[in-house]
Amino acid sequence: MLKGYTLPRTPKGTSSLTPHPPWHYVGNCLAVEYEADAEAVRSFLPEGLQFHSSRCAVYFVEWQYASESGKEYLDPIRSQYRETIFLISAAYDSTACAYCPFIWVDQDVSLMRGLAQGWPKQIGSTWITRAYDLPSKAGPVVGPGGQFGATLAVKDRRLVEAVVTLRESTTQLPNPSFARAVNVRYFPELIGGRHDRPAVHELVQLKSRDVQLSPIWKGDAELCIFEHPHLELSGLRPLKVCAGYRFSCALTVDDLILLRDLRTPKP
Amino acid sequence: MLKGYTLPRTPKGTSSLTPHPPWHYVGNCLAVEYEADAEAVRSFLPEGLQFHSSRCAVYFVEWQYASESGKEYLDPIRSQYRETIFLISAAYDSTACAYCPFIWVDQDVSLMRGLAQGWPKQIGSTWITRAYDLPSKAGPVVGPGGQFGATLAVKDRRLVEAVVTLRESTTQLPNPSFARAVNVRYFPELIGGRHDRPAVHELVQLKSRDVQLSPIWKGDAELCIFEHPHLELSGLRPLKVCAGYRFSCALTVDDLILLRDLRTPKP
Amino acid sequence: MLKGYTLPRTPKGTSSLTPHPPWHYVGNCLAVEYEADAEAVRSFLPEGLQFHSSRCAVYFVEWQYASESGKEYLDPIRSQYRETIFLISAAYDSTACAYCPFIWVDQDVSLMRGLAQGWPKQIGSTWITRAYDLPSKAGPVVGPGGQFGATLAVKDRRLVEAVVTLRESTTQLPNPSFARAVNVRYFPELIGGRHDRPAVHELVQLKSRDVQLSPIWKGDAELCIFEHPHLELSGLRPLKVCAGYRFSCALTVDDLILLRDLRTPKP
Amino acid sequence: MLKGYTLPRTPKGTSSLTPHPPWHYVGNCLAVEYEADAEAVRSFLPEGLQFHSSRCAVYFVEWQYASESGKEYLDPIRSQYRETIFLISAAYDSTACAYCPFIWVDQDVSLMRGLAQGWPKQIGSTWITRAYDLPSKAGPVVGPGGQFGATLAVKDRRLVEAVVTLRESTTQLPNPSFARAVNVRYFPELIGGRHDRPAVHELVQLKSRDVQLSPIWKGDAELCIFEHPHLELSGLRPLKVCAGYRFSCALTVDDLILLRDLRTPKP
Repeated sequence: MLKGYTLPRTPKGTSSLTPHPPWHYVGNCLAVEYEADAEAVRSFLPEGLQFHSSRCAVYFVEWQYASESGKEYLDPIRSQYRETIFLISAAYDSTACAYCPFIWVDQDVSLMRGLAQGWPKQIGSTWITRAYDLPSKAGPVVGPGGQFGATLAVKDRRLVEAVVTLRESTTQLPNPSFARAVNVRYFPELIGGRHDRPAVHELVQLKSRDVQLSPIWKGDAELCIFEHPHLELSGLRPLKVCAGYRFSCALTVDDLILLRDLRTPKP
Repeated sequence: MLKGYTLPRTPKGTSSLTPHPPWHYVGNCLAVEYEADAEAVRSFLPEGLQFHSSRCAVYFVEWQYASESGKEYLDPIRSQYRETIFLISAAYDSTACAYCPFIWVDQDVSLMRGLAQGWPKQIGSTWITRAYDLPSKAGPVVGPGGQFGATLAVKDRRLVEAVVTLRESTTQLPNPSFARAVNVRYFPELIGGRHDRPAVHELVQLKSRDVQLSPIWKGDAELCIFEHPHLELSGLRPLKVCAGYRFSCALTVDDLILLRDLRTPKP
Repeated sequence: MLKGYTLPRTPKGTSSLTPHPPWHYVGNCLAVEYEADAEAVRSFLPEGLQFHSSRCAVYFVEWQYASESGKEYLDPIRSQYRETIFLISAAYDSTACAYCPFIWVDQDVSLMRGLAQGWPKQIGSTWITRAYDLPSKAGPVVGPGGQFGATLAVKDRRLVEAVVTLRESTTQLPNPSFARAVNVRYFPELIGGRHDRPAVHELVQLKSRDVQLSPIWKGDAELCIFEHPHLELSGLRPLKVCAGYRFSCALTVDDLILLRDLRTPKP
Repeated sequence: MLKGYTLPRTPKGTSSLTPHPPWHYVGNCLAVEYEADAEAVRSFLPEGLQFHSSRCAVYFVEWQYASESGKEYLDPIRSQYRETIFLISAAYDSTACAYCPFIWVDQDVSLMRGLAQGWPKQIGSTWITRAYDLPSKAGPVVGPGGQFGATLAVKDRRLVEAVVTLRESTTQLPNPSFARAVNVRYFPELIGGRHDRPAVHELVQLKSRDVQLSPIWKGDAELCIFEHPHLELSGLRPLKVCAGYRFSCALTVDDLILLRDLRTPKP
């Protein structure tokens, strides 16, 4: 009997790209809140979600991960990854939520965990300024005036650049927030004639537990989204940049809420 | 209405990690045929396949890919990838076939196309000796005495090393062959309490078309599979190495045959 | 006694980043000949070289390498690398030659061999369309109408894109050619107050032997050089694209000609 | 007139792989102190240094860097890099110092700065556990019981693994320390017949300024150095592991002390 939460499934089950949940995460986040074109935001929403506002956010996160029994962080190439997440505002059943049109990570393990949650992950290269506990011209202070940059490149093209200048502490997280994300789980068919009738097509709500937050720093931000020959990210380019943020968070994932099976035509 | 064969699904549908089939491939293959422990081979077989023999093969392939309208090979980071495929012998309904316990590629696009076909792809680093059309101490001849090496590393650990010395041309492909592969498509559930009741769990048979083969070279081979702390590949280590091969192949994929839904308990 | 052609020098001398010459190379080249702004070309020439013409060329090469006794190509991560080379026209002592203002490779071993020869190598990501010996929608023919692309990215920014469409065979290599390159060997001082008085500053002429060339294909080309915040490559952008080329070459390097010690002020 | 501290030297001088000093650094270090075989340590010492003891140390460092005017950390792919440094004990003129037989970094900019200082840098892949300011199963505490791992791989082979378990704070840095490093600057000749008469061969002492240190944590350690087909690192494998450390440091480099020109035979 083969075992494993994902492929490859093997006799002992220790070879799966992703082990069974729960999955524990801790990360440093740099975020930029901004306004995009309302029609563009609307055009990216999946069936089942309604337009809420033109407010968007991009998060750049340097994560470390461990499975329940894993201590993967002691072999850190198995544990660490960097991520760029775009969120747009949406509503489900008249309640505000966030929807992720684009997300890039730099490790296959994270990509596969993401697919199980409905994150539309692709591989991309994210870089984020680090803070150190020593004063140095080589790093920013975590405090007023401290400047943090982040970049995303996909297949050797720079796609996003951001700079955040911290000004003050706040108790408010950026909005939309990945705590309230609604995703689409999707797995295609390959049988001839059924390429557009997916095996899995579900609207799901993420469910994290044991969420912890550091103090939050807020400030000014710049954000640049570059044109790309086929990725449609530039449709969500900023018309107005609202604010930048830096904070850390920790959370655990081992559950999900099914909102709606999108294979069933709505009555 | 969002479009796209896989996530991310977007207004124009040009952002999906994998475009709609057909997918066209051409590649140079180095392969090693070998015998593993029969009980080990048996232990890796999924429900629905029977043990056939202890014959295994590993293929190292340098691929180039294009979608139907894509010419992705003109922006080659979108098109080229390297792959290591392990195949073990199996039988379905008393007919010999091949089953893939492990496969590694180095591009996300290939990983996603693979998941749709049931290939249990992970990201790994494959390197394969190249032949050039000029005599040089820096490259082997494609002919008697020419030596080709290949290596696989996964997350900064070397896992496989092979060397093939060509001796003669042959009309016989290595066996088992990926032309007759039976795969398992698998997509997990994340809802609490249902982590072992996958959303998709299917035994499928690959269906390629327009397959073309170059002349095939055969010769001696060495193959070394190293221990790994959690990947179970070394269970399939060679007890006897049979032969090495080098050839090129081209093929197109846009279909699949469903053999059995493995979510339904067998009567 | 420590041994080795370069650092690190060790008891057995087998740890040096670069082993002793001779170094053998074989590679597939895609090239674009073009005209840049004459004043820009002139401004990139080092002391000792004179302006010759505004003709430039960029070469994208997929190399395989071996040392005299090495067979490094059997562990191909030690042997294979991809390179983008820009050459501008120049004259030394009234004889036409080529000078390299920019070159990028993707392996440290190649970078170090390059520094010894005066190539101003940096790490960059080059991708080049491959040809296969089978007809396929996934690859071009090596013949009339066959299209080959190449790209260069440096630190997650796309810097160069080229497409060559083959039209006819020719006996003429692109010009300027790396066979006649004159380089500058340069090694800085770090002692305070001497940062601009290099330890090594030499005008040298490359000396290859056992050069072999495949048949040469010529055709049309497109070339795009993108802006960069601090790399000055866009100064050499094409005003007119002349032709594209595809060919293979093999060569051996174990010598160099010193033209002039540039630390000595010219009388 | 071309400008730049290293190749490539260009009209504006902004294209050099390494800008002019000073270079500012800040980093998080994980270190393991250990004893190697005394004869092995002696065999790695360059001319001009004497044997002092069999004490060695390996440092794994996650650095961020900026030039004097650069703020490179806002485009962090230009600024961040990871490094594995081996130091062995030595004496110069009867004063204890440290000598570096092997060092690996993951960025070309750092490699080139290193060569100017005599660090024998090669490209390698270093991973180091990170600490976060939030309690999480995904990360260790910086305090008693906190466990940190580090790994080094070179060209797809794992070479070093270490785990440090913090026990107590200390005021003592590991020994040998890179603050007192003596390096060998070396730049080869390529002219035929002169491959063993280097253009630069100097014994130099590093000179950092503005050094700052965080509180230092000390504890138990495990260290494993694997065999490699040609890198001689395993000669310096641990016979006894002494202690592990974790601390941060910041420093500035813009000077060097020439101890001796090793091209001149000692009288």
